[in-house]
Amino acid sequence: MTRYRLLADALSARIEQGLYRPGDRLPSVRALSLEHGVSLSTVQQAYRHLEDQGLAVPRPKSGYFVPMTRRAPALPNVSRTPQRPVEVSQWDQVLEQISNAPSPDLIQLGRGRPDISGPTLKPLLRSLSRLSRRQDVSTLTYGSIHGDPALREQVSRLMLDSGCHIPADDIIITTGCHEALSAAIRAVCEPGDIVAVDSPSFHGVMQALKGFGMKALELPSDPLTGISLSALELALEQWPIKAIQLTPTCNNPLGYIMPEASKRALLSLAQRYDVAIIEDDVYGELAYHYPRPRTIKSFDEDGRVLLCSSFSKTLAPGLRIGWIAPGRYRDRVLHMKYMGTGSTAQLPQMALAEFIAGGHYEPHLRRMRAQYQRGRDMMLEWIARYFPTTVKVSQPQGSFMIWVEMPDGFDSHRLNRELQQHGVQIATGSIFSASGKFRNCLRMNYAAKPSAQVENAVRRVGETIASLLAEHD
Amino acid sequence: MTRYRLLADALSARIEQGLYRPGDRLPSVRALSLEHGVSLSTVQQAYRHLEDQGLAVPRPKSGYFVPMTRRAPALPNVSRTPQRPVEVSQWDQVLEQISNAPSPDLIQLGRGRPDISGPTLKPLLRSLSRLSRRQDVSTLTYGSIHGDPALREQVSRLMLDSGCHIPADDIIITTGCHEALSAAIRAVCEPGDIVAVDSPSFHGVMQALKGFGMKALELPSDPLTGISLSALELALEQWPIKAIQLTPTCNNPLGYIMPEASKRALLSLAQRYDVAIIEDDVYGELAYHYPRPRTIKSFDEDGRVLLCSSFSKTLAPGLRIGWIAPGRYRDRVLHMKYMGTGSTAQLPQMALAEFIAGGHYEPHLRRMRAQYQRGRDMMLEWIARYFPTTVKVSQPQGSFMIWVEMPDGFDSHRLNRELQQHGVQIATGSIFSASGKFRNCLRMNYAAKPSAQVENAVRRVGETIASLLAEHD
Repeated sequence: MTRYRLLADALSARIEQGLYRPGDRLPSVRALSLEHGVSLSTVQQAYRHLEDQGLAVPRPKSGYFVPMTRRAPALPNVSRTPQRPVEVSQWDQVLEQISNAPSPDLIQLGRGRPDISGPTLKPLLRSLSRLSRRQDVSTLTYGSIHGDPALREQVSRLMLDSGCHIPADDIIITTGCHEALSAAIRAVCEPGDIVAVDSPSFHGVMQALKGFGMKALELPSDPLTGISLSALELALEQWPIKAIQLTPTCNNPLGYIMPEASKRALLSLAQRYDVAIIEDDVYGELAYHYPRPRTIKSFDEDGRVLLCSSFSKTLAPGLRIGWIAPGRYRDRVLHMKYMGTGSTAQLPQMALAEFIAGGHYEPHLRRMRAQYQRGRDMMLEWIARYFPTTVKVSQPQGSFMIWVEMPDGFDSHRLNRELQQHGVQIATGSIFSASGKFRNCLRMNYAAKPSAQVENAVRRVGETIASLLAEHD
Repeated sequence: MTRYRLLADALSARIEQGLYRPGDRLPSVRALSLEHGVSLSTVQQAYRHLEDQGLAVPRPKSGYFVPMTRRAPALPNVSRTPQRPVEVSQWDQVLEQISNAPSPDLIQLGRGRPDISGPTLKPLLRSLSRLSRRQDVSTLTYGSIHGDPALREQVSRLMLDSGCHIPADDIIITTGCHEALSAAIRAVCEPGDIVAVDSPSFHGVMQALKGFGMKALELPSDPLTGISLSALELALEQWPIKAIQLTPTCNNPLGYIMPEASKRALLSLAQRYDVAIIEDDVYGELAYHYPRPRTIKSFDEDGRVLLCSSFSKTLAPGLRIGWIAPGRYRDRVLHMKYMGTGSTAQLPQMALAEFIAGGHYEPHLRRMRAQYQRGRDMMLEWIARYFPTTVKVSQPQGSFMIWVEMPDGFDSHRLNRELQQHGVQIATGSIFSASGKFRNCLRMNYAAKPSAQVENAVRRVGETIASLLAEHD
């Protein structure tokens, strides 16, 4: 046996014996070299071997760690969708979820809220507070319907990271990504039109389709690579689809990042069948790897992609500031925005422009990405520890949400009712489907820094799932 | 001749001779009694006589004043409307107006902006600034879709002043009155439906009708009493009208207050033909007399009135906080709001709730009402001084906007283009009509405290009108 294998086996045994526990840092390369009297490169070879076996994970500049979860749980199934356009339902369930204000008595694992407690947000709050004291027209009256020029400049600059070269003039600031998506849908579609959506999909968009009298055609999505292109092609062949709406980067709720080749292929399909693409990129900047993935918009040549995003997931939802790069639909989108809310509040726009121009945004993003990646690892560990082994779990590549699939027939609504008695709330899977699918699934949030309180809540979820599953047997 | 008439004639002569100029305070009752050796009641009789003749106006606790404008100009004509539902146009003109951000180089007499420079706003800015520093979920994350509970309580209390007893639970906070109106329209109507509107009417609502594919049936409105009830009844008889949308109190742009009896009669008609009423009350609290006029909503018995309002005209538009009391349409309105923007920003809601609960709102309203009334008087005076005598002018009873009608064939678009070269902007009349009427009219704002700069701008408007009219001859 080679030296590095001997060393690897020794380390592996220590890990198996629990000498190093999940999440622990393993000894440094230098320390092992001294301890075992082998060269640095032998230790590195040993670690690479452990890495291949899933027993060690490297972290840049920090060394090797014991993975949080050593056995990855199975992935959720690719969704089986109705294969025909449907009217969207589930409004009552969405309403139930969003009616609750933040409350100290309820651990709301179901909401799509980022962590807003970190120190890197402070400069933004200082800007907000200082600008709030200014009694002048720039903060207190209507701004331009297009948005604050300084913020549009900054957003244009930020979009370069995703491969988009879009001048500030072609960006419109909106009241959150919600308004961007809502305006995009109305700019492209008429009542009765069919919109193809990924499935599971963000409930906000589907409720907008419902409200505007459009139909959703749910397309099966792979939990690692996203929307099925073959299913999409078939659908485009079969139905008069007006637009494709999807979240290809750090998907909500599945957490996948659609490969760049698939993004290009999807755009080609859209060109071939001449349909618009409404791309939700609200989590795109929270991909765990850097540089961030490219958007479909970055490959767009003829302005058919309407890119929608916001600062709600990267900074704070309470700001209610988003944006849209509407391509060729600019005038229609402006009209829809004017109808919906008029101009967007100036104060948060000005504070955001200051924050980004001051160089505070990148360090904040770096911090949040790292925190959410650790949160993901911890959540996977907790699920492995506390959930029945029959559940299937997504492997988020960004953002702060995880999707858990229970066996067929499981009722996540009943689960939520039981949990609420214990002060815990999850998002039931069915709100992520136009046709009420995914009732056996749930979405949980891991944005908050791991704490005993959150761990207890997750444990409670796992135990309640187990007890409901036991009833079934 | 009686003593009081002798005294009245003497005073009248002094006014005519310019000894007291428009806006001057006239001698006190006591001073005149001493000067002329007559009783206090004789002086009072003399003043009442002058008042009847339009030569003196009393101001509570301040005595008598020379009216700013002694000859009231003629009122605008009652609009002649198309008598059939039309698709709304004029979006390009509206866009032109709202694209301009506030600028020191442009006197924007055309915008619907209140004065935000007064000291009574200070406590609100202090609250905003203090709350902005708070890094917690209540300010930085999503609030309830219904709005902040404390603000809803305060709005419920405010609405008592207009005769409305509406519990906080039946009020939904929105992103400005714009979102309230937009949600109301979509909650009540489907694409293709007909909505009866006052004419001239607020362009925001009409652009919403356009965007949602509805048709506007413009009803002639009297410049003193508002929407013609006989025309409305005829229209209800003839067309399948789904809703009536109007601004009955301090109408935009005409400034009238619909008499209470007419409000009741309009509600009866709506009941008889079973249509909804979308009541825009955004200027209602700025009526010059106190207590403020009642809303149509205050007479509503079966929840058919959707009352829409905001703090944009009373406090500051930049807050983007409005509300809706949607009556029986509550669930639909909530859905429309969720689709459009999700929940409304928490920070300004919390600051507003503090401001109102702290007793700062009433004194602010009193101050603004008085300022705007003086602004109205000054604007009427300037128009009398600088505008051709052929113009007709509204007599606003509240708010801060005046409507000027030039002779038929006059082109306010051309006027605006000429004016912009001189750094002045007015609102062209045609944006206040679904069918592009009122091209010979304009709207101006008198919210700002009278200044030489504004007076020059108004003089420039008058001179440019005169020169354009001269070309015609």
